[in-house]
Amino acid sequence: MKTIDIEDLPWQELTRSADELFAELFPVCRSLTGEGVRQTLRRLAGVTPFELREVPSGTACFDWVVPDEWNIKGAYIKNSRGETIVDFARNNVHVVSYSVPVNTTMSFAELDPHLHYLPNLPQAIPYRTSYYNRDWGFCLSHDQYVTLDKEDTYRVVIDASLSPGSLTYGEAFIPGDSGKEFLVSTYCCHPSLANDNLSGPILWTLLLKVLRSRKTRHSYRFIIIPEKIGALAYLSHHEQAMKKVYGGFVITTVAGPGEPGYKGSFQGDHLVDRAVRQAFVDADKAYVAYPFDINGSDETQYSSPHFRIPTGTITKDKYYEYDYYHTSLDDLDFVKAAYLIDTLKMYLLTIENLELDLTYRSLNPCGSPMLGKRGLYPKVGGQIRQKAAAPAHASGVSQA
Amino acid sequence: MKTIDIEDLPWQELTRSADELFAELFPVCRSLTGEGVRQTLRRLAGVTPFELREVPSGTACFDWVVPDEWNIKGAYIKNSRGETIVDFARNNVHVVSYSVPVNTTMSFAELDPHLHYLPNLPQAIPYRTSYYNRDWGFCLSHDQYVTLDKEDTYRVVIDASLSPGSLTYGEAFIPGDSGKEFLVSTYCCHPSLANDNLSGPILWTLLLKVLRSRKTRHSYRFIIIPEKIGALAYLSHHEQAMKKVYGGFVITTVAGPGEPGYKGSFQGDHLVDRAVRQAFVDADKAYVAYPFDINGSDETQYSSPHFRIPTGTITKDKYYEYDYYHTSLDDLDFVKAAYLIDTLKMYLLTIENLELDLTYRSLNPCGSPMLGKRGLYPKVGGQIRQKAAAPAHASGVSQA
Amino acid sequence: MKTIDIEDLPWQELTRSADELFAELFPVCRSLTGEGVRQTLRRLAGVTPFELREVPSGTACFDWVVPDEWNIKGAYIKNSRGETIVDFARNNVHVVSYSVPVNTTMSFAELDPHLHYLPNLPQAIPYRTSYYNRDWGFCLSHDQYVTLDKEDTYRVVIDASLSPGSLTYGEAFIPGDSGKEFLVSTYCCHPSLANDNLSGPILWTLLLKVLRSRKTRHSYRFIIIPEKIGALAYLSHHEQAMKKVYGGFVITTVAGPGEPGYKGSFQGDHLVDRAVRQAFVDADKAYVAYPFDINGSDETQYSSPHFRIPTGTITKDKYYEYDYYHTSLDDLDFVKAAYLIDTLKMYLLTIENLELDLTYRSLNPCGSPMLGKRGLYPKVGGQIRQKAAAPAHASGVSQA
Repeated sequence: MKTIDIEDLPWQELTRSADELFAELFPVCRSLTGEGVRQTLRRLAGVTPFELREVPSGTACFDWVVPDEWNIKGAYIKNSRGETIVDFARNNVHVVSYSVPVNTTMSFAELDPHLHYLPNLPQAIPYRTSYYNRDWGFCLSHDQYVTLDKEDTYRVVIDASLSPGSLTYGEAFIPGDSGKEFLVSTYCCHPSLANDNLSGPILWTLLLKVLRSRKTRHSYRFIIIPEKIGALAYLSHHEQAMKKVYGGFVITTVAGPGEPGYKGSFQGDHLVDRAVRQAFVDADKAYVAYPFDINGSDETQYSSPHFRIPTGTITKDKYYEYDYYHTSLDDLDFVKAAYLIDTLKMYLLTIENLELDLTYRSLNPCGSPMLGKRGLYPKVGGQIRQKAAAPAHASGVSQA
Repeated sequence: MKTIDIEDLPWQELTRSADELFAELFPVCRSLTGEGVRQTLRRLAGVTPFELREVPSGTACFDWVVPDEWNIKGAYIKNSRGETIVDFARNNVHVVSYSVPVNTTMSFAELDPHLHYLPNLPQAIPYRTSYYNRDWGFCLSHDQYVTLDKEDTYRVVIDASLSPGSLTYGEAFIPGDSGKEFLVSTYCCHPSLANDNLSGPILWTLLLKVLRSRKTRHSYRFIIIPEKIGALAYLSHHEQAMKKVYGGFVITTVAGPGEPGYKGSFQGDHLVDRAVRQAFVDADKAYVAYPFDINGSDETQYSSPHFRIPTGTITKDKYYEYDYYHTSLDDLDFVKAAYLIDTLKMYLLTIENLELDLTYRSLNPCGSPMLGKRGLYPKVGGQIRQKAAAPAHASGVSQA
Repeated sequence: MKTIDIEDLPWQELTRSADELFAELFPVCRSLTGEGVRQTLRRLAGVTPFELREVPSGTACFDWVVPDEWNIKGAYIKNSRGETIVDFARNNVHVVSYSVPVNTTMSFAELDPHLHYLPNLPQAIPYRTSYYNRDWGFCLSHDQYVTLDKEDTYRVVIDASLSPGSLTYGEAFIPGDSGKEFLVSTYCCHPSLANDNLSGPILWTLLLKVLRSRKTRHSYRFIIIPEKIGALAYLSHHEQAMKKVYGGFVITTVAGPGEPGYKGSFQGDHLVDRAVRQAFVDADKAYVAYPFDINGSDETQYSSPHFRIPTGTITKDKYYEYDYYHTSLDDLDFVKAAYLIDTLKMYLLTIENLELDLTYRSLNPCGSPMLGKRGLYPKVGGQIRQKAAAPAHASGVSQA
């Protein structure tokens, strides 16, 4: 009664598909909103269909409001000699996400507070955002930062727009008849960063593709949303449905070179947690166990008091835990499609365990069933469990 | 408020009674049904009365059907020289229980598949049955088996009948007014085998005799039945009554030379289990604890999902555990009436603990009762628990 | 949100107050009833007001009846030479409490059964009572007892009255709006004995004074009663109110030189117990833990099945545990106001813990609250928990 036969899946094709999606989608500049997200979701919906939805800027979502839509065409810093120091075209991580438009010349002293770099990881460009505080900024490597002439003046251009539009998300539903529904959520709002978070949307898409090709007992609600505000928008627009969800997963950071990990639900031993732990036993794999923590991703929203959806996350190089997290070094050299496929297998084994979670009711509850009439009992009685130490073939029933 | 004063019982008389019953009833050929069972039950009902009941062959009992009645007059194997090799008259264990009638001559090759022996216990005749599969067979020691001439022809006779009749069981009821009822069940279907199971019916009878001579708080339902099909027949004909039974015991293998044991109920810490454990504490005796296992005796039927009667078994040389189990060596040399009486004491101590299981409700729940007006308080107050180390007689109240 | 700032209290004034009350009230002859109790309660009510109530002799209190009122003017034993051997005027512990009036001459043999002394504590006068058994007696040191001439005759006078009157108690109520009410009870029925029990009423009075000067969340019911019969009278006249009390304290033996102690409630881990244990942690003090025992004081009444008020007692030299318990050596040399104040602090810390026992309900239960709009979130996002080892000031956000 297996829902999915892990051995039977087209692993080569899935790995190739993951590889192609990494290559195509990595360069796209995504953020909470904007054309980058739409382009990404449309590409993924080409792998296996799901619906795209739009939530207008200004829509209230509990304590939050959907922000204006951000789009960017280009950005750069040039020195007084016209040399381009920092260029969005080379790496979209260079611009603080949600930067307001800028087109001006300023001294280094004026520019400096808008520059972000990492002295302790001097070759990496950090990833920074300013979603809910109207500001602008550039991110650059510390190596580059120290070469800047502090006496020079700089031309600073961010050719971006931040104005009413909408937040885009995707969703798909796989119906089952067990009465139990599970959420499979990922987020799609980071620019050119591979493990956190392009790996999440790719795994989410392949999982949806594999799972819907089978008949499942449980229902699965797949959503792909910008982090936090997208989860809040979805929760606020599906409040009743989401209160009934039995458990869930947030798919993120699934393709790094490090150890597999599992961040547990707030219950710690919910069916979701037990299904994952058993999956690692099934796969005979060790993993790092991370207890629930409200610092993290959208499980914080799903686990909030009003919704209380126990939500787990299987990782391969968990966010916060690897050195290149939220830097330009989290790139296509860091991740591998094969690692993503390893994590996909763990999710499939987990879902298999959820599907197998059944309690059988005896059809013959009044005493023992008669095994003999079903050919399940030895023809000669009385010889069970004779303790005297002898090999089974010497049981004393001579062979005809 | 003791129900039974263990010290006060006529132990010599009970031991003599056990001895007599072993001697008289051991030779009788019992099986699931037939005159051997009736003869045994009538003899036991002469010790203390209980009702005999008959359930016709063909009666449906949940997943089972009461089989035809089996009776046997004699059986033997003779070689071509007319020498009797195996004779039912010498030991009724020689014939596979429920063997169909046979009267024919055959080669060794034809006979061999019908012969049962134990290479690893070469002097013992095994006990074998074929209740629900119409067949026939002989059991013999391996020492005897190896002497058979494989080139000879054999005269094989089983003078038995297997035809519609009835299954016989016995029952008695000791009423109490606590609202709690306990089952005391034993089985009576084995031929000349002493510990498993003649010891069970004898202890059951003596326990019934002792217990009904006292006023008990609880009710006790005593049944003596052929194993499995008898329990199923009883359950199916007393379904509502049996669903209300609070706990029970299956009495079996109570007179061997080995360690006392206790096979617990499926709950493990039901009142029945706690009463037995306390009884061993009361008696200052160690015992082997066997956890519940559906492999066993009629506790499997009583514990089934529809009935859920927590059922325990106090043993002395538990079935499955001793080398002579289900062989002709489980005879009157193996058991002792004194061992049976030891186990009877454990059952009586256990029932005493069940009887003492009371929760008292205060008639004076609002503050302390006034002990003084009931003559239960010292006449002079203030002197309680003075710590200074002095003997009680020097408490400072001079004696008049 | 502290109810009481321990540091802020006028400790010198409280200590002086305790000292004065010990000095003034120690000589008063108290018993279950009578003018000594009234005089004591009136003096305490001068420190902080509470109501005095009277319950007539003969009033039924569950299994008990309020006894006649006892008052005493004087008592002595003189020998035939007119020398005063024992004099109530020197120490009121000399007379068995509730002694009936006596005025007669008798032989030593007649007197002897009425004399109480402690051979193992030869200098101490024991404290004895005969509340519910009409009798009389004298208590004297063993040293004094052995000097009595066994051939002499003795003049014995107890100028006491035992006749219908009333039992006196005091009460005060501090209202709160949490819906939880706690009982603070002490007893006031011992003559010149300092730790057990004058220390209790003094601490009770100072605690009431301090607590009512603050706004409390919980309600506190303060009662000061004669031991046992007073508690029973109070319970029987406030049955419905007392059934709703959530927890309580019996204040007794709080000013001795020994170790602090805590006698737990019958639950052992009730909020009351946890609040006390935390108070000792807060104060960084060790204490002797005494489990609940129905032998003790009025917690026995409050904990009875009908009322079930978990009640704890913080002690300093717990009753039963110190050598001078219930003797004339439990005097003003034994106790110290400073020790009483130490225990008062523990009660205040405990009540502070009760007051702080709150469960917060989120006003924003649907997902995360938006911290940014409340100025609680960093202005730049994405930089949380970067693991690469660098000091916080080198986070790469240059300072403006």
